[in-house]
Amino acid sequence: MVILGIDPGLATVGYGVIEVNGDKRRLVQYGTINTKAGEPAPARLRSIFQGINQLMDIYRPDDVAVEELFFSKNITTGIAVGEARGVILVAVAMRTENLYEYTPMQIKQAVTGYGGADKHQVQHMVKTLLNMKEIARPDDAADALAVALTHANSASMKKMFKIR
Amino acid sequence: MVILGIDPGLATVGYGVIEVNGDKRRLVQYGTINTKAGEPAPARLRSIFQGINQLMDIYRPDDVAVEELFFSKNITTGIAVGEARGVILVAVAMRTENLYEYTPMQIKQAVTGYGGADKHQVQHMVKTLLNMKEIARPDDAADALAVALTHANSASMKKMFKIR
Repeated sequence: MVILGIDPGLATVGYGVIEVNGDKRRLVQYGTINTKAGEPAPARLRSIFQGINQLMDIYRPDDVAVEELFFSKNITTGIAVGEARGVILVAVAMRTENLYEYTPMQIKQAVTGYGGADKHQVQHMVKTLLNMKEIARPDDAADALAVALTHANSASMKKMFKIR
Repeated sequence: MVILGIDPGLATVGYGVIEVNGDKRRLVQYGTINTKAGEPAPARLRSIFQGINQLMDIYRPDDVAVEELFFSKNITTGIAVGEARGVILVAVAMRTENLYEYTPMQIKQAVTGYGGADKHQVQHMVKTLLNMKEIARPDDAADALAVALTHANSASMKKMFKIR
């Protein structure tokens, strides 16, 4: 099963693709979709829409996992990220029903076993779980791999309970 | 020139279509795209995306005017409206470059001549300007007509200054 994880943003959308085979998780690819701060919002949102469509075309994920919005910063940033997140959700939803959302706490809990883990601990666990030589950069890509891993664990769990 | 005005929302997206010919403004159509509160967010956003595409197909607007987000209520509603607004912007931006945004104050100013006008005054002016028998219902549709009228005035102004 191929999982595409997405960390939403307007300037930077992180993505991470993993392959799951039973207990095994294999890193396929990670990176970011970037939009320029100087461009008007509609053009930036269009780039994100097209970028997500390209990822769907290239990796043909079985499931897509997106991080839920969490407002820690200011409201203006929040609106912009909300708009970008809406675009990401609709781009995925136009292609597949297999779209899942996870809160930052669920991601921390799933990846490190502790909902209060910090960013660095999460990134370190992502590196370990995917046998990577270095921590994924930038943070947005590491976060996207973390949400993909969260879904992998959640999906495995569901299957396990179905079997029983 | 045909203008499509849009008042963003998750549960209700208002739309209003007007035709502008010099100083004349003619009402073409108005209404809402509605999504169900019980449905998951991605499905609701997909309905909005498809609804906007249908409006673009039916009315083939030359210009599209969208109200800018304005947070007066709670943050949770704000995130949801932000997501819906992002979907609206991208749906339009995939079809045309002629996308314009107006703040609530710009709309009040343009329609009533007074930036501090209340909702009812705006709705009444929309009715008058478009020779309607009744005030447009629901509010979202009336707001969408107001943003379309705002763009009509703004576009006329721009043309006027170009000529000079």
